[in-house]
Amino acid sequence: MRRRRLSEGATHELVRGLGALLGADRVLTGRDVCDQHGRDESFHPGAAPDAVVYPASAEEAAAIVRVCRDHRAPIVPFGAGTSLEGHVAALHGGVCVDMSGMNRLLRLSVADLDVTVEAGITRHGLDRRLRPEGVFFPVDPGADATLGGMVATGASGTTTVRYGGMRENVLSLLVVTADGELLRTRSRARKSSAGYDLTRLYIGSEGTLGLICEATLRVHPTPEATAAATCSFTTLRDAVDCVVAMLQEGIPVARIELADERQMEAINRHDDLTHIVAPTVFLELHGSPADVGIQAGEAQRIAADHGCSAYRAATDERERRALWRARHRAYDAARALRPGARAMTTDACVPISALADCIAETQEDIATCGLTATIVGHVGDGNFHVILLLGHDDGEELARARALHDRLVRRAIDHGGTCTGEHGVGLGKMRYLELEHGPAGVKAMRALKRALDPESLFNPGKIAEGSWGL
Amino acid sequence: MRRRRLSEGATHELVRGLGALLGADRVLTGRDVCDQHGRDESFHPGAAPDAVVYPASAEEAAAIVRVCRDHRAPIVPFGAGTSLEGHVAALHGGVCVDMSGMNRLLRLSVADLDVTVEAGITRHGLDRRLRPEGVFFPVDPGADATLGGMVATGASGTTTVRYGGMRENVLSLLVVTADGELLRTRSRARKSSAGYDLTRLYIGSEGTLGLICEATLRVHPTPEATAAATCSFTTLRDAVDCVVAMLQEGIPVARIELADERQMEAINRHDDLTHIVAPTVFLELHGSPADVGIQAGEAQRIAADHGCSAYRAATDERERRALWRARHRAYDAARALRPGARAMTTDACVPISALADCIAETQEDIATCGLTATIVGHVGDGNFHVILLLGHDDGEELARARALHDRLVRRAIDHGGTCTGEHGVGLGKMRYLELEHGPAGVKAMRALKRALDPESLFNPGKIAEGSWGL
Repeated sequence: MRRRRLSEGATHELVRGLGALLGADRVLTGRDVCDQHGRDESFHPGAAPDAVVYPASAEEAAAIVRVCRDHRAPIVPFGAGTSLEGHVAALHGGVCVDMSGMNRLLRLSVADLDVTVEAGITRHGLDRRLRPEGVFFPVDPGADATLGGMVATGASGTTTVRYGGMRENVLSLLVVTADGELLRTRSRARKSSAGYDLTRLYIGSEGTLGLICEATLRVHPTPEATAAATCSFTTLRDAVDCVVAMLQEGIPVARIELADERQMEAINRHDDLTHIVAPTVFLELHGSPADVGIQAGEAQRIAADHGCSAYRAATDERERRALWRARHRAYDAARALRPGARAMTTDACVPISALADCIAETQEDIATCGLTATIVGHVGDGNFHVILLLGHDDGEELARARALHDRLVRRAIDHGGTCTGEHGVGLGKMRYLELEHGPAGVKAMRALKRALDPESLFNPGKIAEGSWGL
Repeated sequence: MRRRRLSEGATHELVRGLGALLGADRVLTGRDVCDQHGRDESFHPGAAPDAVVYPASAEEAAAIVRVCRDHRAPIVPFGAGTSLEGHVAALHGGVCVDMSGMNRLLRLSVADLDVTVEAGITRHGLDRRLRPEGVFFPVDPGADATLGGMVATGASGTTTVRYGGMRENVLSLLVVTADGELLRTRSRARKSSAGYDLTRLYIGSEGTLGLICEATLRVHPTPEATAAATCSFTTLRDAVDCVVAMLQEGIPVARIELADERQMEAINRHDDLTHIVAPTVFLELHGSPADVGIQAGEAQRIAADHGCSAYRAATDERERRALWRARHRAYDAARALRPGARAMTTDACVPISALADCIAETQEDIATCGLTATIVGHVGDGNFHVILLLGHDDGEELARARALHDRLVRRAIDHGGTCTGEHGVGLGKMRYLELEHGPAGVKAMRALKRALDPESLFNPGKIAEGSWGL
């Protein structure tokens, strides 16, 4: 569906309608606030909405959608702005719905191991509420994203290998449909076969099918004991082979992450640490103290069998936290390798048997085209990120980086993988959807968009409405 | 969409078209074969298709769909016929596609822990191929269903508490769309955020959105050690409370199943066993020998804390198999309580904190209305089945059972649960979809059906096209 921006007059009417609903203090149209809501943490260019609104409840969110529908105004949801793919860019203007005011924990059941939250609660905000109750929400994409944003991108992260990502940890959603109605996608039961899986359809829909207001999430008992370690290897292939062996032997690793030599150098420099500068696997185990002790012994044995040159266990909580803080800061650390640079991040994910080849080919490609980059990866899932460091005003370098990214995506798809493991389609991956899913897949996605959002109100121009040319 | 059966002439043309494609020996129209393919293991009345066809490949399956589309003939897929909800009833006649000839294992990667199979392979057939490779597919609904059927109903079962159901264990599907095109829903990568989740949309679609031809599944390393036990309790509430405590303490149970007193009596009688006749929890643990030993100790301690009157560990493989064979035969054992009876099975699933209340209210209801029934449950997921034993020709008893089922579904939904945890909607649950999902949910499901199957070729009259009246 082709869209045009609302005229100045139509925008004025729209803002008046929203103001009548929310009051003037919750409908902002200033240049700065609009610009800020049209961009995220990525290198993608922003696109400002015409207005930013702040709902305080699901009912208000539904009323906002009805006003926007009546004015045929695009609706773009906004969480914490931590996306890395330009999801929040308001390509056709319209109304940005900032969910930060809807950040309540609505109910928690420790007996049922589930919690219902509003979409605007952040990961750390949720964690602070859950920890004292002896439970935690495992999905950890690194950034302090909102839970609504994590639903919208189908987020995952360091713990997915053990606990799954959003698709495995969301029980139910409350969304506003294109008719401005509230739809609860599913009951709170642990499992259900009662009709089409509306919940998973909204997970990863990037704001294009409806406005996500609440999520009911699975939570997990906080493990009694946690152990962490780093294992250094001579080659990246040894590191990957070691991870494959651990998974095959059924070691229930909670986290298993990879960083290449360059990334380890960056971490040492940025955090003033003394890790060995070599391909490194970061490992974490959860369980009872006895379980974790046994598993750590088995992990160390497997690492040694695969040529691990140094196995360092984090002996206490402080050391363990420092280790993961370093891993979580990989992005900042990489950027510090080239001060003033901006970072372009890739997100390929391949079957794990193809991971060593895919990374080796990519490293060679990076070297050949003379770019500066580090590699980190959720190696247990076959997902890795190349963090490319680019000069701000160097168009030629950006073109080389884009070409590298293009080759990387094709390589990943050739290896049976995907262009995006966890960041989502956004602006950067639309052109690859047909390559990855074929014409029949694209046709199905377009049909789903038309079915649930026939007037293209929700985040127009994204996913199935993108430009598909390669 | 209203449908009418094909006329005799149109059916004749259709059969000729299919015969030209497959040869006469793979297009059957005999009364017996059609009747047999229109019914399953449930008490629901069957509805015979006009013809049964046997594709040998996905390409042939796609060609069959194109022929049916050209003749506007309904298409109903058939796996092993083990459904308990009448999914295969050809309500408007048409063509039954029997997938039993497509039962190959197409590829297996132990390194990637995944396997690609044709839809007609059965659970036991797959297991026989996987076991020698040191891996297994965990989803276990009891019956020897086909994997295609398990995808179609969103099956789960005894191991879901640890390994998840079909939604967590299917990576990708190959389906024939309403255009007769082959669509691969997703790559083989462990995770992806590349557009709408087509895979999960087909899981649980019960043959109404396309014809499922192949599935790529996660497999898991066969655990080095397995321990099993039964725990007897004085009350059913103690049994459920014990399970809640085990889950909260993070004991990674692989299976945790419940049987009521009556079901234990049935198992003893049917299998000539000597279990204590009391509410019983069946337990299984997977891991390294050391892990399993520790976990078994913890489980026994928690059971004792919750008033477990007898904890019996299965000491060897033979005893463990006997224990689970008894659990798997619960259905047959229950039926033997009333020889010649037919069984009606319910499938409610509630948040586990509501399970003890919901079962207690249901037991009282069964007693009040004078029916014979046993209860078994996947207690770790809050899913339980009432197996009602009904005389064959007693319409009044059937009416009482239906009324009981109706009250049970409303009770489960009131408790925040679902009318079907794992058996699917089929013929028995359509009337509850609006109660469970509300008008907005039903509207979305209807829109999805129209989007992907606008001419209602696939299993017409089911899920979103059912009769919604209560």
